[in-house]
Amino acid sequence: MEKRGGSGGSQIFENLGTFLRKCIFSVLSVGPIPNHIAFIMDGNRRFAKKQNLIEGAGHKVGYLALMSMLRYSYELGVKYVTIYAFSIENFKRRPEEVQSVMDLMQEKIEQLINEESILNHFGVRVHFIGNLKLLSAPVRLAAERAMLVTACNSKAVLSICVAYTSTNEIMHAVEESCVKKWDEIRELKASGVDCGLTKLEGYEKGEAQDLINLTDIEKHLYMAVAPDPDILIRTSGETRLSNFLLWQSQYCYLYSPSVLWPEIGFWHLLWAVLNFQRNHFYLEKKKKQL
Amino acid sequence: MEKRGGSGGSQIFENLGTFLRKCIFSVLSVGPIPNHIAFIMDGNRRFAKKQNLIEGAGHKVGYLALMSMLRYSYELGVKYVTIYAFSIENFKRRPEEVQSVMDLMQEKIEQLINEESILNHFGVRVHFIGNLKLLSAPVRLAAERAMLVTACNSKAVLSICVAYTSTNEIMHAVEESCVKKWDEIRELKASGVDCGLTKLEGYEKGEAQDLINLTDIEKHLYMAVAPDPDILIRTSGETRLSNFLLWQSQYCYLYSPSVLWPEIGFWHLLWAVLNFQRNHFYLEKKKKQL
Repeated sequence: MEKRGGSGGSQIFENLGTFLRKCIFSVLSVGPIPNHIAFIMDGNRRFAKKQNLIEGAGHKVGYLALMSMLRYSYELGVKYVTIYAFSIENFKRRPEEVQSVMDLMQEKIEQLINEESILNHFGVRVHFIGNLKLLSAPVRLAAERAMLVTACNSKAVLSICVAYTSTNEIMHAVEESCVKKWDEIRELKASGVDCGLTKLEGYEKGEAQDLINLTDIEKHLYMAVAPDPDILIRTSGETRLSNFLLWQSQYCYLYSPSVLWPEIGFWHLLWAVLNFQRNHFYLEKKKKQL
Repeated sequence: MEKRGGSGGSQIFENLGTFLRKCIFSVLSVGPIPNHIAFIMDGNRRFAKKQNLIEGAGHKVGYLALMSMLRYSYELGVKYVTIYAFSIENFKRRPEEVQSVMDLMQEKIEQLINEESILNHFGVRVHFIGNLKLLSAPVRLAAERAMLVTACNSKAVLSICVAYTSTNEIMHAVEESCVKKWDEIRELKASGVDCGLTKLEGYEKGEAQDLINLTDIEKHLYMAVAPDPDILIRTSGETRLSNFLLWQSQYCYLYSPSVLWPEIGFWHLLWAVLNFQRNHFYLEKKKKQL
């Protein structure tokens, strides 16, 4: 009975919180709402140390913070959220730590694709971004299942960068473009005398400058599934991109609150969006004219 | 006589300033000194507006601020300084504004290669970085002359990004790598039966994944003349990279003082270096292990 009462009490507080957020978000919606927010979730391990928790506990509390941020973002009307879950560089950490993060990732991915998860609540399609071949088989399978299960969701998008670095993403796009162009050249050769011959002769003469262009590269970037982010939030006061969305962050507003990731809250997101709105018209003008 | 007295007075102040800086720099040198500092010189036009100056005057005051920053950086022992002088996007500004910046650039480049300039004082080699073909002929010629004249300086390096964007730099590197690889393939074909045939057959079979690799790209980046920056300072409180050194800023400390570029001073540089030092060991560990 007490438990019920407690649960009822916390339910009232939760509903009140949701109501207050809705009020704030409707005021915020008078201005431009970011279409895409990206997060570098920095500080889970430092949080565990600070709170004298065991090492993996930081990531678990971090996951709860992530769920809150996703909820707030989608409630606000942000369509795309991207998170930096695991970098290719992170594979260099101690094997037992990598294993523990992978185990947690598998568990949480499976939790995410449950019927009652936040993904179904907000109609979120999930993309796993990066060189997925580097993941252990169970995590890769769970990731592929999550992408399959949510493939028909169309209201919002969550891109989870795992086994990702920006330079790897760009190199992968260059390789893909090369392969495509190489196939094209071989087809031209095979067809011989058709209208493509002039183009082929151009290549043969060494006019390889036009082999690959910007559109080819951008089409083959893993992150082609989303527009460029409007806001990139990195916690723990770090003002570095750590090889995350470098190509996509050309004109993005970077925000670095000093809190560790598990400590991030509603007010940090609100502050980021307010700053984004303050700069929005100036940024738009810059993008178009300068 | 008065003039002489005034000049003598200001000379004393200047010497005192230099002496104080030297004292502070020798204390600072106990910690790690950044090898490379990059600047996005933002806020010249806003400074002109704020001070009710004519439009071009902001850039002129900005040039003086740049000279101070170069002096402080080289005095501190920073070997590489890179500045974002003019973006490819900037060509979209009003023609008369572009022309006025180009004129100023030409004038200042010629001033820089004077015998008594800061470049010769600190033994600075100059590189102009970007698609120089986009510059007007007089500016391009002045830039080429500056590179030639300072080619034998070896104590420090100044990279001036003009007609530059990071995505253009990466695309240019991809093109160059393609051209090189294409030439290599044609040579293999011409030589026929030598040991390269296996490699050629690999290409013919469509194994184009290995056509271009990370080293190829990095070798052909315009900024291959300098290591990655340790600190990137962008004035006027903006926390965006605006398509500047995206590839190179993977682990760089980003600092955004709220002052406009012409207002930047010694203390801002000092603060940036102190923050860099505070994070240095943590960053080094991250770079190597995480």
